[in-house]
Formats: sequence, structure tokens, C-alpha cells
Amino acid sequence: MNETIKTILLRRSIRAYQPRQIEDEKLQEITLAGQYAPTAMGQQPWHFTVLQNPDLLENLQLQCKSLFLHSDNADLRALALREGYHVFYHAPTLLIVSGDCKAITPLQDCVLAMENMLLAAASLGIGSCWVHSVVMLCGSDEGAAAFKSLGLGIPEGYVPHAAAVFGYSAIPLPEAEPRKTQRVNVVR
Amino acid sequence: MNETIKTILLRRSIRAYQPRQIEDEKLQEITLAGQYAPTAMGQQPWHFTVLQNPDLLENLQLQCKSLFLHSDNADLRALALREGYHVFYHAPTLLIVSGDCKAITPLQDCVLAMENMLLAAASLGIGSCWVHSVVMLCGSDEGAAAFKSLGLGIPEGYVPHAAAVFGYSAIPLPEAEPRKTQRVNVVR
Repeated sequence: MNETIKTILLRRSIRAYQPRQIEDEKLQEITLAGQYAPTAMGQQPWHFTVLQNPDLLENLQLQCKSLFLHSDNADLRALALREGYHVFYHAPTLLIVSGDCKAITPLQDCVLAMENMLLAAASLGIGSCWVHSVVMLCGSDEGAAAFKSLGLGIPEGYVPHAAAVFGYSAIPLPEAEPRKTQRVNVVR
Repeated sequence: MNETIKTILLRRSIRAYQPRQIEDEKLQEITLAGQYAPTAMGQQPWHFTVLQNPDLLENLQLQCKSLFLHSDNADLRALALREGYHVFYHAPTLLIVSGDCKAITPLQDCVLAMENMLLAAASLGIGSCWVHSVVMLCGSDEGAAAFKSLGLGIPEGYVPHAAAVFGYSAIPLPEAEPRKTQRVNVVR
């Protein structure tokens, strides 16, 4: 098995982080990897936000937590009420990929870019975890307005489609849950 | 730069294929890689179809081509009219990832899985190209019915969210288009 496939199989969602920040040169490798994802008609219709400011991160995580607390979903409410729960798991970096609303498939393009970044990070020994709450927050008018008030410089007409936290894991690599491998059907 | 990041930066969308089929053991590595993508709440709400039957592939590509010919989009109509245009570029394998409509984020989960497979393929020297037309086809009632009539065994309640062709490239690795690297904003 080659290194790339090993990285893919060993990437895990990490939910506890050390406080130390990712080195800038590793961050650059990660965001460059994101930009090499395929996009419909090669449009590259995206904008990447790297959020490392502790106050803004905390402000945003409180908004996301509030979203969970007021959700219709009982699991999300229970999660938000859990002792010490932090939406970003105290990770020092949040990456957001926003897509141009006028593009052909902006959502897909942004998600593809994010997977590249999760894998690039894993290959560099950096943990990550997809956090869908940021995208959820921007899905409501009120949440989108609150998000915009943070002043992250996302261009007009772009909407967050993928978000994930990054940092050095504070825990050993978790075991993967068993895969549902019966779900592949080959038609010859 | 490590092997994983090299693979990410060297993956290209390949639009010309050799007729020879992918080896089964490589196909298994590719679909396994797909199944190690992250999913919301670890649901793995997906089903993978590997379509290698030449008649069914041709039937499906004709349906997709017809979709382009009758599209409102002039670029798609022009593409379908191009001499020798083949929606799947004569690739011997089409992979479709379908998502469970009842899952939390089935579209995102399927797209993440597909990026893993595009990268795993690239790491094995196998070319690939995202083909959105299959997903487009299933977006209309008529197209979805025609697609269903192929009998690919996609479970009830699952919808195709990502499709790509795979095979050995018939051309040298294309140069990447320049990246729009000014699109990264770091907020410290």
C-alpha cells in the first residue's frame, strides 16, 4: 500500500487539540493542496479563510453552540449541553471554504477542496475535524448576519460550504469505526 | 514535500483513456479509500456503484449526451455536438457514489468519498475525471427513471451525488491551470 492510500486510511476526525499553532509553512502546504482539487469547468470558484484569531474563534464557536442549543434536533441539544463541550474542540485553526454562488457546482468544489486539506494535514501529522456547524449557521439569515459581523473578509456573493478545524492532536490516533464494506456493487 | 501532497498536486482530470480495464486489486484499494472519508456523525450513508459493463456505460453516456443536447446552457450543447465527444471519454470504469436521502449531509459525504477515490487512483497511476452529468441526469424525474431502468442496484432511497470515470490515461499528464492563490485570507 502506498503512502497516499495509507494517509487516506489513517486520517481520523480529531476531537481534542494541543494549544500550539500549526507552523505557517505547513498551513501553506495544506491550503495549496486544497486549491488543487478538481472544480467544474476548472472554475476554482472558491475563497479560503484561515481563522486563527482566538477571540474570533471563541465568538464563532459560541454562536455555533447557541445554534445547537436551539436546534430541533435532540442530539445536537444534548451535545451542546455536555460539560466542557467546545464546538471547535479548542483547535487553534479553523478553515472555511466559501463558494461563489454563481458557479456551476460551488458546494461540491468546496467540499472536494476540504478533503484535500484534511488529507494534506494528516500527511503532515496534523489532526483535523470537519465542523458542519459553521455551514449550518450561515444557512439562516440571522446566523449569516452574525457570521458576517465577524469581518472575516469573505467576498460578497460567496457562501461557506465546508469548514474544518486543524491542529496537533492531544490524543492518540482513534480506531476507525468498522466500514460498511458491503456497500460496493460492481456491475460488469 | 511528502508523497500524499505530491499526489494531490499531480492529480489531473483525464479526458482520454486506454481501453484496458483497471485491475481488480487496484479497484478495491480505490473503493476502500472512498469508504474512509469522513461522514457526518460517522453515518457512512453511501452506496458505491462500479460500472464496467460496456453496453450499460454506452447507454448511460448516450443519455447524458442527450441531456447536454437539450440543455439551456449553450456551452453544454456545443460540447455535445463536438465531433467524437464522449461524455465518459471512453473510460472503462464509472464510479457512482449515492447517498441516503435520510442522512444528515449525504451530498457532502459522497463528494468527500469521491475525492479520496480520485486521489487513491492518482497514487496508483490511474487517471480519473469527475463527470457531473450523471448527477444532473438523476436530478430530473425523467432522467432518474431512465437511470433507474439500467438496473445498477442502487438501494431505494439513495440518490447519486458524485460520479467519476477511471482508467489508464491515453495522454501525457496535462499541465495544471494556474491556481488562484490570492484567494486565501488568513485572519490572525
